[in-house]
Amino acid sequence: MIFRQLFDLASSTYTYILADSDGKEGVIIDPVMENVDRDFQILQELGIQLKWILDTHVHADHITAAAALKEKTGAKIGLGAGANVACADRLFQENEEISFGDYQLKVIATPGHTDSCTSYYLKGYCVFTGDTLLIRGCGRTDFQQGSSERLFQNVREKLFTLPDETLVYPAHDYKGRMASSIGEEKQFNPRLKLSNTKEQFIEIMKNLKLDYPKQIDRALPANLKCGKV
Amino acid sequence: MIFRQLFDLASSTYTYILADSDGKEGVIIDPVMENVDRDFQILQELGIQLKWILDTHVHADHITAAAALKEKTGAKIGLGAGANVACADRLFQENEEISFGDYQLKVIATPGHTDSCTSYYLKGYCVFTGDTLLIRGCGRTDFQQGSSERLFQNVREKLFTLPDETLVYPAHDYKGRMASSIGEEKQFNPRLKLSNTKEQFIEIMKNLKLDYPKQIDRALPANLKCGKV
Repeated sequence: MIFRQLFDLASSTYTYILADSDGKEGVIIDPVMENVDRDFQILQELGIQLKWILDTHVHADHITAAAALKEKTGAKIGLGAGANVACADRLFQENEEISFGDYQLKVIATPGHTDSCTSYYLKGYCVFTGDTLLIRGCGRTDFQQGSSERLFQNVREKLFTLPDETLVYPAHDYKGRMASSIGEEKQFNPRLKLSNTKEQFIEIMKNLKLDYPKQIDRALPANLKCGKV
Repeated sequence: MIFRQLFDLASSTYTYILADSDGKEGVIIDPVMENVDRDFQILQELGIQLKWILDTHVHADHITAAAALKEKTGAKIGLGAGANVACADRLFQENEEISFGDYQLKVIATPGHTDSCTSYYLKGYCVFTGDTLLIRGCGRTDFQQGSSERLFQNVREKLFTLPDETLVYPAHDYKGRMASSIGEEKQFNPRLKLSNTKEQFIEIMKNLKLDYPKQIDRALPANLKCGKV
């Protein structure tokens, strides 16, 4: 399998390219507008036929490259059910499978950071968790119909029930870490670890005192149009 | 196998942690002083018994965390033969094998960026190339007894003769890319691709017109003491 993790230095966003090394069918997860040339060059040089451009949610901190990459490659745009994104080709329901070559990503609905957050699970290997589960953290829940209660429940019931060795690939990290595992997060995530109760988690999230998201007024309207600005 | 790639945001340096998931013996490659707490925490949480702290060369753009990690873990410090680093526990000769658990890293001498640059090859999987071979680039050759001729020869004869599917993990990238492969670099590296001659490469390197390295006067003396400042 071809696997590439890529980083956007401005927003600390991770983008992922996955493809079957045989037929070269592939997907890209959470591409960032500013990196469209970089990412398109990689797709071309590796000979990948892009099938799907997937976003884990409607991002508020960067503009998606979905529309731009669709124009360049002809791939379809997908997000999770509930995303208010009319330009998407598909809004995936829970448990749907997204195929590329011999591989499948399973759709796991994990609202909480936003009301339509989605994780994509590559069975036996890794899960792309967006902002639902970060390395030793999680996304904020105070915008975009966020809910600490739903985030907690979805992480505990849907992500922490995956095998411990499943690698966790998030949409961001701010300390230069690129991957974790379900087993680690169950043990060491200061907010979501198994020894914390739901009430403790909700209290932690309530007291984060975060600034207003810098890019939200620019990014949200653009992302509801798949990044067409 | 446990594999973690980590990023230093200030110097764009990649650090790698490798360990056998059974016995948990491991190595760290190119650790950065500023991240010693982050990296030590990962080693502790994953239960890794660090055997070796390896630098691919005497870095000029950041201070190594070698001495600091040795103090915290008891691991030994290793670099390639020719490195003028008296505090190292070992200076590895070409073709030596560095063992951790059931795995071995093979030492490949790849001077050119500096006179003692070393690559570490994990057979059948990947190669850690330091500044010798970067993604679509290579390290400069105008300081630290660098030599464009030697860099070209070592890349062509020692790295480009590894299997095409070998993943390339460099010491830096400045565009958010994290890995490449030998096959890609043979085809797409604008400086070192197979269609370039040695003379073309030397000419490219001669005309780079790079600034004086910002951190060299601070980093080099510190790194000759394993980062003890």
